[in-house]
Amino acid sequence: MTDQTIAKWDFFEATFTGPSGGNPFLDVQIEAIFQQNSRTVRVPGFYDGDGRYAVRFMPDNEGEWHFTTKSSAAELDGQTGSFNAVAPGASNHGPVHVRNTYHFGYADGSPYLPFGTTSYAWTHQPLELQAQTLATLKQTRFNKMRMGVFPKDYPFNVNEPLFDMYQRDDEGELDFDRPNPEAFRHFEQQVGALRDLGIEADIIIFHPYDRWGYSEMSEEQDYRYVQYLTARLAPFRNVWWSLANEYDFLLNTKPMTQWDRFFQIIEENDPYRHLKSIHNGDVNANYDHRKPWVSHVCIQNWDVKRTQEWRETYGKPVINDEPEYEGNIMLSWGNISAQELVHRYWITLLRGGYAGHGETFMHPDDILWWAKGGVLHGEAWKRIGFLRDLLEEDVATGLTPLARVGNWPWSRVSGASDGETIYIYLGEHQPVIWAPGLPLEPGDYEVDVIDTWNMTIEPAKVVDAPANHPTRHGAVVRQRRPDAAFAVELPGRPYLAIRCRLRR
Amino acid sequence: MTDQTIAKWDFFEATFTGPSGGNPFLDVQIEAIFQQNSRTVRVPGFYDGDGRYAVRFMPDNEGEWHFTTKSSAAELDGQTGSFNAVAPGASNHGPVHVRNTYHFGYADGSPYLPFGTTSYAWTHQPLELQAQTLATLKQTRFNKMRMGVFPKDYPFNVNEPLFDMYQRDDEGELDFDRPNPEAFRHFEQQVGALRDLGIEADIIIFHPYDRWGYSEMSEEQDYRYVQYLTARLAPFRNVWWSLANEYDFLLNTKPMTQWDRFFQIIEENDPYRHLKSIHNGDVNANYDHRKPWVSHVCIQNWDVKRTQEWRETYGKPVINDEPEYEGNIMLSWGNISAQELVHRYWITLLRGGYAGHGETFMHPDDILWWAKGGVLHGEAWKRIGFLRDLLEEDVATGLTPLARVGNWPWSRVSGASDGETIYIYLGEHQPVIWAPGLPLEPGDYEVDVIDTWNMTIEPAKVVDAPANHPTRHGAVVRQRRPDAAFAVELPGRPYLAIRCRLRR
Repeated sequence: MTDQTIAKWDFFEATFTGPSGGNPFLDVQIEAIFQQNSRTVRVPGFYDGDGRYAVRFMPDNEGEWHFTTKSSAAELDGQTGSFNAVAPGASNHGPVHVRNTYHFGYADGSPYLPFGTTSYAWTHQPLELQAQTLATLKQTRFNKMRMGVFPKDYPFNVNEPLFDMYQRDDEGELDFDRPNPEAFRHFEQQVGALRDLGIEADIIIFHPYDRWGYSEMSEEQDYRYVQYLTARLAPFRNVWWSLANEYDFLLNTKPMTQWDRFFQIIEENDPYRHLKSIHNGDVNANYDHRKPWVSHVCIQNWDVKRTQEWRETYGKPVINDEPEYEGNIMLSWGNISAQELVHRYWITLLRGGYAGHGETFMHPDDILWWAKGGVLHGEAWKRIGFLRDLLEEDVATGLTPLARVGNWPWSRVSGASDGETIYIYLGEHQPVIWAPGLPLEPGDYEVDVIDTWNMTIEPAKVVDAPANHPTRHGAVVRQRRPDAAFAVELPGRPYLAIRCRLRR
Repeated sequence: MTDQTIAKWDFFEATFTGPSGGNPFLDVQIEAIFQQNSRTVRVPGFYDGDGRYAVRFMPDNEGEWHFTTKSSAAELDGQTGSFNAVAPGASNHGPVHVRNTYHFGYADGSPYLPFGTTSYAWTHQPLELQAQTLATLKQTRFNKMRMGVFPKDYPFNVNEPLFDMYQRDDEGELDFDRPNPEAFRHFEQQVGALRDLGIEADIIIFHPYDRWGYSEMSEEQDYRYVQYLTARLAPFRNVWWSLANEYDFLLNTKPMTQWDRFFQIIEENDPYRHLKSIHNGDVNANYDHRKPWVSHVCIQNWDVKRTQEWRETYGKPVINDEPEYEGNIMLSWGNISAQELVHRYWITLLRGGYAGHGETFMHPDDILWWAKGGVLHGEAWKRIGFLRDLLEEDVATGLTPLARVGNWPWSRVSGASDGETIYIYLGEHQPVIWAPGLPLEPGDYEVDVIDTWNMTIEPAKVVDAPANHPTRHGAVVRQRRPDAAFAVELPGRPYLAIRCRLRR
């Protein structure tokens, strides 16, 4: 029997004192087997510095769990302990996994629609700025954060990080055989802070924007880093693994087989099977997301009308986490208008994918949200929150794009449904009357017109669908109007959507 | 010696009286050989009804021309005559041909940048409405009109045409072996009216929107129709041949070989080699525009950022004559906002192609510009005229897309140059500073910021280009800023363009 209790999907940590001489990061192996009845789960441990070793475990079932350690060091081997996993709190839904092929859900069964933002190096900024970032996030509806483990060197990112992720040797050089536990503890603290805000941490393991040498570690060092990171972070329920940002810009030092191996190392060390993805730089350099270790498609592509193509190509959920950022910097991926980003969100979502947010507005102190956090300066985030709230009213399974309506593919207008609820996004189109995609059968529907920019929802004026005008040519008669039970009158301006749902 | 004078690129017509019994359209062949010194040009003649036969000829060189007829009817055979071709008037630049691979020019050497609009059936409307259409065109800067020979049956197009293009038999049925000369004379009159306004007539020979039977004539009747049309219309210098609108919707009765043959028949009967193209319906059904008889690529596609792809695929000028229309009808190709159409124009032009205009606003009497003409109700046409005026200030050769600037392809922002003049269109991008694509070498440049919607041109504030921030990863150093001799400050709002030209 044990006194210690841990909520399901929180994590239990056991610590031990062991060898501190030599290089424990290289020399000492430790893991633990956690057991509930006849079920066992292997969990890697890690060295936390100063002779301190730890194993962490996130229980996915309530009840008593026991563990026994295995270690190459005698004093760490055969240690045992136990804890009691209790019911999770109301805000603890467990980790997110893929559900319904193209969508996500929490382990407790509640839906999860990713509405993420990006702040690559926010955990490397001064603590005050990090606190401000968290305070800002609390005001938004974002529920995912893309963030790197390593600091960033890039335009607008020239400051030194708060912590080195590896220890420095006597000459002041980074020793890529000795992780810096203090830095990892800080990183974990912020992952935990996100968790407490209901935000998934999409952790970017490698990236190319580097002047310190993190992108040039040896293959062996890379593998050890991935293993170390997994041992420490996998027990956080809100962790997602993003193998890289723009992995293709690192192919000159890390060939494709190495990327595959990173995925495998995570699978060997993450018993919770957190979501795993990898993000491209060049639009023509998508990783082969069909590989079995990839849980979902991460993509960088401004051409959001291709969302269905990516769904079909890879057969997995699609998150376009860089459909370009709202901002005004010189770099083209970072200067679209708020209206354009909101437009791309609606197109992406209503073609069955998910989109990501970022902000890159010039700032006198180079504090751009996309890399450093701080406060939001733009206009898109509110509309993205509005979209999330709107969809969460009804979406349970996940949106499925409307394949065809009438005579033409949905290449111009976007539309999707979830169960009996239909959404149509007209975007740059401004009809004064619309029917394609609306239900074929008459029924008791509630139909609304949504102004995606002004964030209003108003009952639509429903009218008879216009009479069909077939046009004969040769042997073929083409229907010139799509069939629908009714039509909707619209005010004839762009950026509107229609929602149609069965009255309950 | 002859007294009759004709301006070069106007046309000479000789008429003769011949057989009127039987069916002269089928029974009587007539052509003429026009001669200047040892040069001869074969010109087909045609039957104009009531025993009247004609041959028409457009001289492309000044001086005296002689002709001799050949005919299956004795009284039409061996007729001779002559005329004197004199210098063209100031507004007569001759026919338009392809020039500089991807562009066009008038026969007199002046550039021609197509800025076309669409009114498929305007010549079939009541005469008052036709007069109004011409008066409207006069107020615009359009210099091409897409228009069908046959009347149109379609939503908003249910009225009967002013003239049947074929004669009716005693039972009131159309006789597709007997063209209606009165209808063709009217059509010619309106082609001439366009010519006098400086507008090219992009004549659509076949289309599928039909309830009278024009789209279901026999193969033989189709061939005779193309021949008859060519004999009558080719002498108009402003004629372009558009084989069809949405030819692929007619493939069930007119297979691909027949479309090829139509092109060939035109080549056999049009000694002036007017421009020839063919327009698709489905975005995946482009004709093979590489075929030698196609002068330029006509395309219907909303995805205008693909313009360079079409240039490269076909190696010919690209006119996207349906990048969707400004309007508010239910059909998706006819309800984009004015801003969106202007946006698509700029993208298309600044990627080295040309775009087409149309308007489809709901109207109480179904008078939609795109089919019937009348007046314009939208906002795009003025901005399109502004763009034409702007480009005609400097463009002589034709715009060549800027292939690459810095590290990324021009997939996000559009840019093109002509000689020393560079245009950059930022569209949905709103940087406050911009350099990519600007000249590499310092020089005496005049740089302007263009508001494409508000139609303003203002001197740009030129500043130093931001310092380069190279980012090392692995063996590769990536330049994070494109090189340019200078940068331009911008107001940070969308739909702006930059023009940079050498001061003269």
